[in-house]
Amino acid sequence: MRLSRFFLPILKENPKEAEIVSHRLMLRAGMIRQEAAGIYAWLPLGFRVLKKIEQIVREEQDRSGALELLMPTLQLADLWRESGRYDAYGPEMLRIADRHKRELLYGPTNEEMITEIFRAYVKSYKNLPLNLYHIQWKFRDEQRPRFGVMRGREFLMKDAYSFDLNEAAARVAYNKMFVAYLRTFARMGLKAIPMRAETGPIGGDLSHEFIVLAETGESGVFINRDVLDLPVPGEDVDYDSDLTPIIKQWTSVYAATEDVHDAARFEQEVPADKRVNTRGIEVGQIFYFGTKYSDAMKALVAGPDGVDVPIHGGSYGVGVSRLLGAIIEACHDDAGIKWPEAVAPFRVSILNLKQGDAAVDAACEKLYAELTAKGVDVLYDDTDQRAGAKFAAADLIGIPWQIMIGPKSLAEGKVEIKKRSDGSRETMSPADAVARLVG
Amino acid sequence: MRLSRFFLPILKENPKEAEIVSHRLMLRAGMIRQEAAGIYAWLPLGFRVLKKIEQIVREEQDRSGALELLMPTLQLADLWRESGRYDAYGPEMLRIADRHKRELLYGPTNEEMITEIFRAYVKSYKNLPLNLYHIQWKFRDEQRPRFGVMRGREFLMKDAYSFDLNEAAARVAYNKMFVAYLRTFARMGLKAIPMRAETGPIGGDLSHEFIVLAETGESGVFINRDVLDLPVPGEDVDYDSDLTPIIKQWTSVYAATEDVHDAARFEQEVPADKRVNTRGIEVGQIFYFGTKYSDAMKALVAGPDGVDVPIHGGSYGVGVSRLLGAIIEACHDDAGIKWPEAVAPFRVSILNLKQGDAAVDAACEKLYAELTAKGVDVLYDDTDQRAGAKFAAADLIGIPWQIMIGPKSLAEGKVEIKKRSDGSRETMSPADAVARLVG
Repeated sequence: MRLSRFFLPILKENPKEAEIVSHRLMLRAGMIRQEAAGIYAWLPLGFRVLKKIEQIVREEQDRSGALELLMPTLQLADLWRESGRYDAYGPEMLRIADRHKRELLYGPTNEEMITEIFRAYVKSYKNLPLNLYHIQWKFRDEQRPRFGVMRGREFLMKDAYSFDLNEAAARVAYNKMFVAYLRTFARMGLKAIPMRAETGPIGGDLSHEFIVLAETGESGVFINRDVLDLPVPGEDVDYDSDLTPIIKQWTSVYAATEDVHDAARFEQEVPADKRVNTRGIEVGQIFYFGTKYSDAMKALVAGPDGVDVPIHGGSYGVGVSRLLGAIIEACHDDAGIKWPEAVAPFRVSILNLKQGDAAVDAACEKLYAELTAKGVDVLYDDTDQRAGAKFAAADLIGIPWQIMIGPKSLAEGKVEIKKRSDGSRETMSPADAVARLVG
Repeated sequence: MRLSRFFLPILKENPKEAEIVSHRLMLRAGMIRQEAAGIYAWLPLGFRVLKKIEQIVREEQDRSGALELLMPTLQLADLWRESGRYDAYGPEMLRIADRHKRELLYGPTNEEMITEIFRAYVKSYKNLPLNLYHIQWKFRDEQRPRFGVMRGREFLMKDAYSFDLNEAAARVAYNKMFVAYLRTFARMGLKAIPMRAETGPIGGDLSHEFIVLAETGESGVFINRDVLDLPVPGEDVDYDSDLTPIIKQWTSVYAATEDVHDAARFEQEVPADKRVNTRGIEVGQIFYFGTKYSDAMKALVAGPDGVDVPIHGGSYGVGVSRLLGAIIEACHDDAGIKWPEAVAPFRVSILNLKQGDAAVDAACEKLYAELTAKGVDVLYDDTDQRAGAKFAAADLIGIPWQIMIGPKSLAEGKVEIKKRSDGSRETMSPADAVARLVG
């Protein structure tokens, strides 16, 4: 993509409404624009990252055997009366009347609707297990939306819903999602630690939050440092095998949010030199809630003995849009964002340091064409800005690799490559630069 | 995908609420489920097609130079008061109050919001031309939603919005979208004919509807048969070149909906043997509306002479979710859907005609593994249904290629391949079947 043809409205000033660094950087880098309190438009740079995150989430859900469908944003109030949550949910639920005065709501979550879909079609244990997920915009009418996409009102979530015959089978489904989540966040370059959690309004008795460590995070967390070095299951993990050993390994090392922190246990279990008290951001949560919704909504299947029983359910959320904020909170410096490669809006930026110089222009065009032809996502800064502004913009938007081409180095047949994550620089021929950045 | 692990709730009976064939087939094939009047959940089979259509639309928008962003579903009422459309839009607009009694609406279209985004950042003609698009769920509170996804209330649209300094430049943008639309629909296997159209509530003085011919369509259309044979621009079309010759070629052959049909001109221009009067379905519409929104909302840029002028705009919609219905209306027979390959939920279906027979099972598994490894999307019917039910389901859901494996033909080292579009059958070795279906 040529920057001269892209839409990248970078802000020079720090927006005063932004209280946290991810919100500030997303506004300054031209990634989002607020359209109403807690409601954002995703400008092209932000949209590209959002899609990359969404795609990683999707691939790992698919790999685990979950099936994607899509539920609408609007739901009938009557569906929520069945579960008893319509009145219970409170003012965070956005309630709507259509032209015929029918009561609708903008879905804050989808346990009711997916249970309704399930019960309409599945009648026998033979069709289990089943895990259905969707990636959809949801709405929660926060009293005071803030922190940009971290606590928005309209936000993108992945939610999976599992259906099983009994608790043992439901725990197998739970474990699959646990492993899928470990892989999902690791692929984005994040250390997201599963921590035992309260179940809250979803209900049930088993839940883990996945928390990204970031000093600017909303929750205090206490961990045994060893948890940071636990191995994340590889692409070859067999979801049909018994995943219990992986779960045991990850849940036997101390990791808790301040809400459920047990100071006595922490001091007893964790050696002093391994105790870490830091902060974190929740990016996912998984729940086993048993028959809470299937009892209320009569989602029954015939068991092997022919007797109808309510299914055991779980739900599994990932905050897709929130993840952009979480990643920036974890990966930035004073100059801007440092995107992990897997979610970067572009992988490489070419900075033409003397736009209009025939040799420099030609070298930039050639490199741009070569990298693009090899499938590398390149943002080519071909604008007439001065070099300093190009450096600042490239650091701000956080592209992992910057290739700088100016008359001096080019006269020696060289370009300079800068790695954004650590600031390291190297000088090499354009051909070596291509070889380095491809594959 | 193994059918035993997929979620494909096929209905045996014709649902009585479905008045048209696409609605009936989408319900019977387990593609959608109605959640409220005109509001659907997309079950896994339908979701797969929706994503394929969305991706083709995206690729052709990108190819034309349009930039993707995403606007939220909810908008502030005040934004629409600026353009004067808040009161004008009528009861199709879903109006909402949040917990603080702020007036919101569920976007039925986005001219106002994109103009607001544009004017916030773009101040000079030097940043033009610009074409921004999004693919988003929208809501129109139809008095009487019906015909399934063809006239739903919550529906998926692609909308592009172009910004140019003057009318001549805006017509260049319009022509790019015209060509992109020709390519988009052709890639889906559709003959979508551009027809001069009324501009309606969007405003402006230039518009074309893209209409798919289907006997069950909503609009009567009159065309010169020659329009069906006009060449669609290829992948190598140069969007930076003058596209006028392509537009002239397509707009000089008679094609009109009954609303704007001119019987006298039709008879004068079109030889009797080339006159076609049939029906069609609108799948896209493009508008040039000049300064309608930029005047009202003060979207000005400084021209080359330094004087601020209102930009000239256009908008360009594709009914992404509606396209599923349109494609089915155009491509089906009494047995079910006949998906064009580019949008089929799976490309190949393997039918195991004797589940449990060791040789047949092994041959099916081997073929499934080979095709999957070569990147072919396969649905493997490994259920314990009888052969007749498998044939009927495969025809209903419309996978383009069916490979049938039973004990008799397998004893001779053969499988049977059926092409869904014309019903033709061939017998060949499994290795030949793989060679035929790969690439």
